[in-house]
Amino acid sequence: MSLNPVLNAQSIAVIGASKVETKRGFQAIKVLLDEKFEGTIYPVNPKEDRILGLKCYKRVSDIEGPVDLALITTPGPTVPSVLEDCGKKGVAGAVIIAGGFGEVGKEGREFEDQVVALARKNSIRLVGPNTSGMMNLKSRLNLVGLRKAPQGNIALLTQSGNMALTLITEAGIKSQQGFSYYVGVGNEADIKFHEYLKFFQEDSDTRAILMYVEGMRDARRFLQQAYQTTRVKPIIMLKSGKSATGKLSAGSHTGALAGMSEVSLSAFRRAGIVVIENSDELFPAAEALANLPYIRNNSIAILADGGGHATIAADNLTNLGVNIPELSEKTKARLRKILPAAASVRNPVDVAGGTDDNPAVFADCANILLHDSNIGGLLIVGLFGGYSIRFAESLAFSEEDAAHRMGKLVSETGKPIVLHSLYNFARPHSLDLLRYYKISVNDSLEISCKCIGALAEYGTYIHSYRAKGKFEFSMGKKAKIRGRAIFRKAKADGRGVLLENEAKELIGLHGIQVDPGHLVSSAEEAVKAAEKIGSDVAMKIVSPDILHKSDAGCVKLGLSDPGDIRNAFNEIVANAGKYNTSALIKGVLVSPMAARGLEVIVGTKIDDQFGPVIMFGIGGIMVEVLKDVSFRVLPISGRSARMMIEEIRSVAFLNGFRGSPPVDKVAIRRLLLAVSEIIGSYPDIQEMDLNPVIVYENGLSIVDARIILRREADLPWWSK
Amino acid sequence: MSLNPVLNAQSIAVIGASKVETKRGFQAIKVLLDEKFEGTIYPVNPKEDRILGLKCYKRVSDIEGPVDLALITTPGPTVPSVLEDCGKKGVAGAVIIAGGFGEVGKEGREFEDQVVALARKNSIRLVGPNTSGMMNLKSRLNLVGLRKAPQGNIALLTQSGNMALTLITEAGIKSQQGFSYYVGVGNEADIKFHEYLKFFQEDSDTRAILMYVEGMRDARRFLQQAYQTTRVKPIIMLKSGKSATGKLSAGSHTGALAGMSEVSLSAFRRAGIVVIENSDELFPAAEALANLPYIRNNSIAILADGGGHATIAADNLTNLGVNIPELSEKTKARLRKILPAAASVRNPVDVAGGTDDNPAVFADCANILLHDSNIGGLLIVGLFGGYSIRFAESLAFSEEDAAHRMGKLVSETGKPIVLHSLYNFARPHSLDLLRYYKISVNDSLEISCKCIGALAEYGTYIHSYRAKGKFEFSMGKKAKIRGRAIFRKAKADGRGVLLENEAKELIGLHGIQVDPGHLVSSAEEAVKAAEKIGSDVAMKIVSPDILHKSDAGCVKLGLSDPGDIRNAFNEIVANAGKYNTSALIKGVLVSPMAARGLEVIVGTKIDDQFGPVIMFGIGGIMVEVLKDVSFRVLPISGRSARMMIEEIRSVAFLNGFRGSPPVDKVAIRRLLLAVSEIIGSYPDIQEMDLNPVIVYENGLSIVDARIILRREADLPWWSK
Repeated sequence: MSLNPVLNAQSIAVIGASKVETKRGFQAIKVLLDEKFEGTIYPVNPKEDRILGLKCYKRVSDIEGPVDLALITTPGPTVPSVLEDCGKKGVAGAVIIAGGFGEVGKEGREFEDQVVALARKNSIRLVGPNTSGMMNLKSRLNLVGLRKAPQGNIALLTQSGNMALTLITEAGIKSQQGFSYYVGVGNEADIKFHEYLKFFQEDSDTRAILMYVEGMRDARRFLQQAYQTTRVKPIIMLKSGKSATGKLSAGSHTGALAGMSEVSLSAFRRAGIVVIENSDELFPAAEALANLPYIRNNSIAILADGGGHATIAADNLTNLGVNIPELSEKTKARLRKILPAAASVRNPVDVAGGTDDNPAVFADCANILLHDSNIGGLLIVGLFGGYSIRFAESLAFSEEDAAHRMGKLVSETGKPIVLHSLYNFARPHSLDLLRYYKISVNDSLEISCKCIGALAEYGTYIHSYRAKGKFEFSMGKKAKIRGRAIFRKAKADGRGVLLENEAKELIGLHGIQVDPGHLVSSAEEAVKAAEKIGSDVAMKIVSPDILHKSDAGCVKLGLSDPGDIRNAFNEIVANAGKYNTSALIKGVLVSPMAARGLEVIVGTKIDDQFGPVIMFGIGGIMVEVLKDVSFRVLPISGRSARMMIEEIRSVAFLNGFRGSPPVDKVAIRRLLLAVSEIIGSYPDIQEMDLNPVIVYENGLSIVDARIILRREADLPWWSK
Repeated sequence: MSLNPVLNAQSIAVIGASKVETKRGFQAIKVLLDEKFEGTIYPVNPKEDRILGLKCYKRVSDIEGPVDLALITTPGPTVPSVLEDCGKKGVAGAVIIAGGFGEVGKEGREFEDQVVALARKNSIRLVGPNTSGMMNLKSRLNLVGLRKAPQGNIALLTQSGNMALTLITEAGIKSQQGFSYYVGVGNEADIKFHEYLKFFQEDSDTRAILMYVEGMRDARRFLQQAYQTTRVKPIIMLKSGKSATGKLSAGSHTGALAGMSEVSLSAFRRAGIVVIENSDELFPAAEALANLPYIRNNSIAILADGGGHATIAADNLTNLGVNIPELSEKTKARLRKILPAAASVRNPVDVAGGTDDNPAVFADCANILLHDSNIGGLLIVGLFGGYSIRFAESLAFSEEDAAHRMGKLVSETGKPIVLHSLYNFARPHSLDLLRYYKISVNDSLEISCKCIGALAEYGTYIHSYRAKGKFEFSMGKKAKIRGRAIFRKAKADGRGVLLENEAKELIGLHGIQVDPGHLVSSAEEAVKAAEKIGSDVAMKIVSPDILHKSDAGCVKLGLSDPGDIRNAFNEIVANAGKYNTSALIKGVLVSPMAARGLEVIVGTKIDDQFGPVIMFGIGGIMVEVLKDVSFRVLPISGRSARMMIEEIRSVAFLNGFRGSPPVDKVAIRRLLLAVSEIIGSYPDIQEMDLNPVIVYENGLSIVDARIILRREADLPWWSK
């Protein structure tokens, strides 16, 4: 069902309407009237006849006309009966303000589930509960109580009423722009982040989506939707609740599981989301992305009227990964013509007093810089806007002239300008003019850098190779008949794991060369298997009950002599019995010894919010001591697999170290993709652990493979 | 000479005084008059009789009364003759505005040197050149041209006129506080950072020193002074020019070598300086440190009226390393009594509407929290100050009451309060009241976190163990007679290095057990030496001309058989001849083979700005691939040596890994301290390289030691 009747409601019933001025049920109606909501308002209160001049109804079902949306301001326990009544009336949606649901523990969660079930039965979509409300600024449907929020083209989606208040207040002070919608998602009991996202994606008045998130009910569906949305318009997100205390704090006021795992930032970025770390940058970055052209080549010029600002800006942009390239000789020559000899015409450009008596020279410089084909955008830092304040009032006209010309330059070149001005606080007319042309103007140097950085980041995402992760499995499409049989057998045996030879066979089925080894059940069979292999062998117990084989003394390596092999077999079996007297022993696996090479580890697990994720790292100390691993939400593309390999800190080992040859990264990439395919083929896998995998100059060898099965029989949530 | 006559000048000559309103020589006098400088002003211009009502002099030496300071506004080439004239008059100092000196390349540097020599000859101290000027806000000696800078207790010391303008403007807008002095250090041609620092340290009106730095002429002297200064008052610093482009940009506008090496941040922090990364945080952090008590125990409470802000604050403070401890049961019980049931009385505390109809409850909560002995300071985040705006005007009185009580609470408990308010922009009276009580009030959540973080960082520095680095060598005090002889011998031989056996002997002289080995000059001597050693031996060439012995095939390991030893001797000598036909061969060093253990590396070098620095890391891949090393400016204390060991990422190896025992960290610490002592004993060392050092469960073994000598004969700059 579309969210249209909810977010674009034409008629609204206010449950708990009141004549008492301090009550939410009074304020809600007052705000709707004051702000001139263009639809119909129906106060609902069994004890009143009229409120604020409007006819009051005893219950929703008494209302004559159609009702799209109910604002429920009454306490939590009243919600079920209100929803029943709304159901009778055919109300499409309800905003539940009250808390006391999922955010307060087990009982609350159960009550929340009941309310959601009731809403579903009555075909009512819910915003909240535990929400500050929602606004549609186009129809002036303001269910929040905050007045005079500025209207604009940014949709605001948050999990904190205070952060919404912060951002709306900030927009009112700093900007000439504002919001199309605001939704406080509350506990996400019914409508989830991804559904709002889809609605905003389709809304033609929304140019950017601004999010504050602490945790999510269904992060995988969100990623899938975000991937679609960021193809059309930018999403800017602050994700908090990362620290232990932050998680605790978030947990106490949202129903969602707070503190997403390590994978979240890379996943959000892969979905094209601009992730913000500092809340001061959130609105300015969203505004820049909503209003300015994006940077195609991740390269900008800095224009400054003083060294300090240029130096700080260069440091910040370098940290943000934005290039500050050399200017072309032609550009430098053109700049030299209009700037004094002391000016620096390298990038950053320092006008060195060349604008002191004529700030319009800024526009001349901007024109030259934005016509350099190496330059995708311009950051101006320093005093522009303040020449009239600092030097002579008459310079205001020159600054205004520059503002008009720079504004036009943006639409002419399709390249953005972001401006930092020390004099922004004084609101000179020239800076308001720049804002009129949608140029981003900030008093903070760091925020200015972040704004142009965001334009570069999103521009790069949009204009670069697009075969990115859609975060969707084509579940089972690549499954093999023999693979399915392996899982069936394990389940029929009542096992929670695949045996090592089964796991290796499964991997082999998906295009990776693996020697599954010989499963033998006597010392003599072991000797024969070793003869067949014809080189040194490794021998390991095969038992669903012994996962840590080395600890149990059930692994013997580098054997060739038949006597040794016999002894090894007997010892392994004896040790297995000692380790776990009731262990079911399936036999002993005899495999060729892997040649020496570089050990790597590949693993998967199921994250509570994101579903299956994959991990890669270099074996031993790098993973165990240095925690030097890379993660991705599955499935992954070839590009993601490559990046996983390249982004570990110790990647130098793979590239050849101290004269040793580089290892076969293509083989690792193929293995990562095969694992991705396997996870997408057999929904029974809980966890997969290939450790160690030995990589050579050519090819690799999977020495040990462990696959743990899911306990549940039904299809996992993430496969749907 | 004290800087008092310069920075507290009572009389000032303005060279280049002018009647032309746009000239600096006019504006300088106008500002001094307008701002009512309490001293005497002497315009100097050979062509004028009176300027702005003041008598004008043809030259400085014509002035009747005493002249403390000359402001030179004339172009660079005029400076020498002006200084000569000032010298005649006995002027104590000069501020040189003009550029075109050290910042513009070799010729400029030579000219700058001439000007400095001339100033020295005439006993004149120089501010600049290439400076925006200086201000003494107490006597209203304003030589900058920026009017109405707010007076206060922060001394401002910068390398960028624009950054000074930024900070002074920011103070005027946001604060009720301001500056005692401002100095633009310019090229630091004469007076250097550390001299200003000393002056501000002694100035009783200065409570904190705020610095913007791109590079420094003498970073070691600065560290030595900063160590003294931060015992008395805080220094807050933004260091820019870190990125490649930032360095380039900085280099083009300051004379100093920009972009200090990797060691700078840790050195500044060791000297007790609060290093700031974001320019938006610079003034607010300085203001907090100048006006509020410091936090003794690095632990704070967060008080919030909404979850989102508390979550972001907790994330930020965790990143800053500040603890957000559990509250005591007593504190929680007291909070429960005054807050609604839905409130969270854990830390962060969320009042959950408990302040909505009475914001004075904030003061009650603050009182309870600051009386918890686990809590050293309080951060309040959210809407305080805006209750009167958001809810009801009458709440203003309640907010003002709370402000008075919180202000008094700070002096009563000696613990700071920092407040974030979304309504700071509206300047409600309650927030001005908080400012009156010197409470830090900010509209940014991140800046608020940084302010309380800075109070915790500096408080921890002040109140923790004080035997910190003074960055001074007691040069030669611990030198050994035999050690000096080793260097004399090497120099007499005309060598640029110590031989391996000499280097090892030197280390042995400083309390580290090292086997210097046996230097032999025949195969037979080698066999005898090996017999004496009585275990497997290593044999290496000893030649001042062969530094990379392994590459030259001049190292043989694990030898015991006399025949093998003879062959090894002959091969080593033959390979040495092949590698470098003119190499001087001093013999072959026969040493006992070191037992297997963990390889570490210790090295020193001389940094251009900081002088000798020491490096530590785990040998091989950790250093070469992962660049996992720690640095310190020498000399180091035992505490610094311990921290160098603990702060490498791969420290887990030292603590025992996969069942191997922990290595002898005390032995490593002793070695680092011995190296520190050696560098402070023999000024001839340019570079020292102990690689590898093998560390055991008990003790260590220095396998190879290389010491390269300085080419210069005179004492190094850093030893003075």
